[in-house]
Amino acid sequence: MIITPIQIRFADIDALGHVNNVNLQHFFDQGKVDYMQRVLGLSGVWRKEGFVQARTETDYLAQVFMEENICVRTTVSRLGNKSLTFSQQIYDADTGQIKAASVAVNVAFDFETQRSVAISDKWRQAIEEHGIENFQVADATGCAPRPGH
Amino acid sequence: MIITPIQIRFADIDALGHVNNVNLQHFFDQGKVDYMQRVLGLSGVWRKEGFVQARTETDYLAQVFMEENICVRTTVSRLGNKSLTFSQQIYDADTGQIKAASVAVNVAFDFETQRSVAISDKWRQAIEEHGIENFQVADATGCAPRPGH
Amino acid sequence: MIITPIQIRFADIDALGHVNNVNLQHFFDQGKVDYMQRVLGLSGVWRKEGFVQARTETDYLAQVFMEENICVRTTVSRLGNKSLTFSQQIYDADTGQIKAASVAVNVAFDFETQRSVAISDKWRQAIEEHGIENFQVADATGCAPRPGH
Amino acid sequence: MIITPIQIRFADIDALGHVNNVNLQHFFDQGKVDYMQRVLGLSGVWRKEGFVQARTETDYLAQVFMEENICVRTTVSRLGNKSLTFSQQIYDADTGQIKAASVAVNVAFDFETQRSVAISDKWRQAIEEHGIENFQVADATGCAPRPGH
Repeated sequence: MIITPIQIRFADIDALGHVNNVNLQHFFDQGKVDYMQRVLGLSGVWRKEGFVQARTETDYLAQVFMEENICVRTTVSRLGNKSLTFSQQIYDADTGQIKAASVAVNVAFDFETQRSVAISDKWRQAIEEHGIENFQVADATGCAPRPGH
Repeated sequence: MIITPIQIRFADIDALGHVNNVNLQHFFDQGKVDYMQRVLGLSGVWRKEGFVQARTETDYLAQVFMEENICVRTTVSRLGNKSLTFSQQIYDADTGQIKAASVAVNVAFDFETQRSVAISDKWRQAIEEHGIENFQVADATGCAPRPGH
Repeated sequence: MIITPIQIRFADIDALGHVNNVNLQHFFDQGKVDYMQRVLGLSGVWRKEGFVQARTETDYLAQVFMEENICVRTTVSRLGNKSLTFSQQIYDADTGQIKAASVAVNVAFDFETQRSVAISDKWRQAIEEHGIENFQVADATGCAPRPGH
Repeated sequence: MIITPIQIRFADIDALGHVNNVNLQHFFDQGKVDYMQRVLGLSGVWRKEGFVQARTETDYLAQVFMEENICVRTTVSRLGNKSLTFSQQIYDADTGQIKAASVAVNVAFDFETQRSVAISDKWRQAIEEHGIENFQVADATGCAPRPGH
C-alpha cells in the first residue's frame, strides 16, 4: 500500500465550502501517479508506456475541508493481462475518517502506437512483490503531515 | 434530455495529448449544472438547497481531443426520495461517437443545516415532466457548435 | 478584435463565492487560443510551432459570479520580431462592466527544437490584416450568450 | 520569507509537456496561502476577513517539468494601509534555477460587508516582525522534498 499526503489548493474548494468532487479525483490521481513512480519506476511524463483510465467507481462519503490533513492510500487489488485495478481511499490523517473510496480500472497503453498492451513482466513482478490486496475497512493508518499548509 | 456543448480549455489537455480524465468530470458536471438550471431553475451558487454527489461510475470509452466538437447529454434515470441518478454521455457532436458515459447519484442537500433532505415536490414535478429516461445506446443527436474554439 | 464567450464551470467558483483569480487566467487563455485559431489558423494541440507565455500583467477589477454572462475580448497590441503582446479584457456581456484586464507577452516557439523563433511572415501578415490595436476604454461590445449555462 | 514545497499534479502538465502557465499561478497561490497561515494565522476558508487579489505581474522564465522538485518562496515586499505586495519566485529546489517570478498586490477585504478594509494592527505587526523584504536575486535556498512524487 502506498500512502500519499495531499497538498490541498485554495482553488480546490468550491462555492459550497468543501473540496469540489471533481478535484477529489485529482487526489486519487496523485495516489496513482505516486504508486506508479514508487512501485513501477514510472516518473515524469510518459513518452511510450503508461496507463489510460478505463473505468472509475467513486463513493463520496464525507466532505473534505481546507484545514484537514488529507492523505490517499492506494493499492492494486486486481492484476489482469492488460489491465489492473487500483483501490483507493481519501482519508483524514488525524481521525482516520474515510472521505471517499474509489476503484479504477487502468489499461496499459503504448502512446507511440496508441494501442493497449500487455502489462510487462517487469511491472507485473514489481506489483506482485509490492502485494495485491484489498483494504481492511477498519484500517486508519496516518501519514506524514503535508507541507505548505 | 438536456444537451450541453462543452468549451474545451487548453489546460484540459494533459501531457498525453488528450483531455485529462479528471477534466472529463468537469464536462459531466457542466451537464448536471445545466440540467439543474434549465429543469429545476437552480442557478448561480446554491446558498440553501442543492445537491451533493454521493457516487459516480464512469466508463472512459475513447480519448477526447482539443479540436473535437464535444457535447454532453444528461438525463435523470432514477428519482428517489432524497436522491436521484443522472445518466450522462460525453460525445463527439460531429460523429456521434460516445467518448465517456457516467452514472451519478446525487443527494438533495440543505447547505444551511448541512443535512440531506427530501427532494421537494416542485423539483420532483419538474423532473417528472421533463421525463425520467435512459439513453438509447444508438442515440447520436448533435448539438450546436461551441463558441470560442 | 476577437470576442470569445466563456463557459463558466461550477468548480471555477471558489470558497469566496466568485470565480477564483487563477481560473480567470483560464478565461484569458481561452481568448488567446480563440485568436490563434481564428486569426492564425493554429488549432488543436501545437506539435511544432506555437507560443509560450513570457509575461502577464493582470488587473482584477471586479468579482466574477457564476450567473453572469462573461466574455473575453482579445487583440494584439504590439507585434515584434519573435514576440507579440496580447491585450485582453474579461467583461460582463450584459452590462459592459470590465472585470479584469490583462497584457500578455507571448513568444513564438518551436516545440521540436525547444527554441524561440521569429514570427513567420504568414502569421505576421494575418495579424497585421486583422489589425494591431489597443482597446478604447469605453468599449463595451456585447457577445453571443454562452451555452450550457 | 516563507518557503513552500509544491506537489505537482499530473493534470498540471499540458499538451506541451510542461506545467501549464495558468497552473503556475496555483503554485504562487499556494505560497500566498501558506504565508497567510504561517504568518497571519489565517487558516481554512476565510469567512470574514481575508484578501482579494488586485493585480499580478508574472515573468515566466523557464519551463517547469513533472519530475522537478519545485518550491515557492514568498515575502511581503510592501505593506500599505489597505494593501500589501507579495514578491514570489517559483524555483527548482535542486538547482536553484528560478522558473517564474511574480509580484501580486493583495487588498484586505471583509467578505461579510464585501468591502476593502484597513489591514488590522495585529496583521501589520505580524508582517513587520516577519520582515518586509525583497529577494536577493542570487538567492537559491533549497526546501524540503515534496511528498507524493
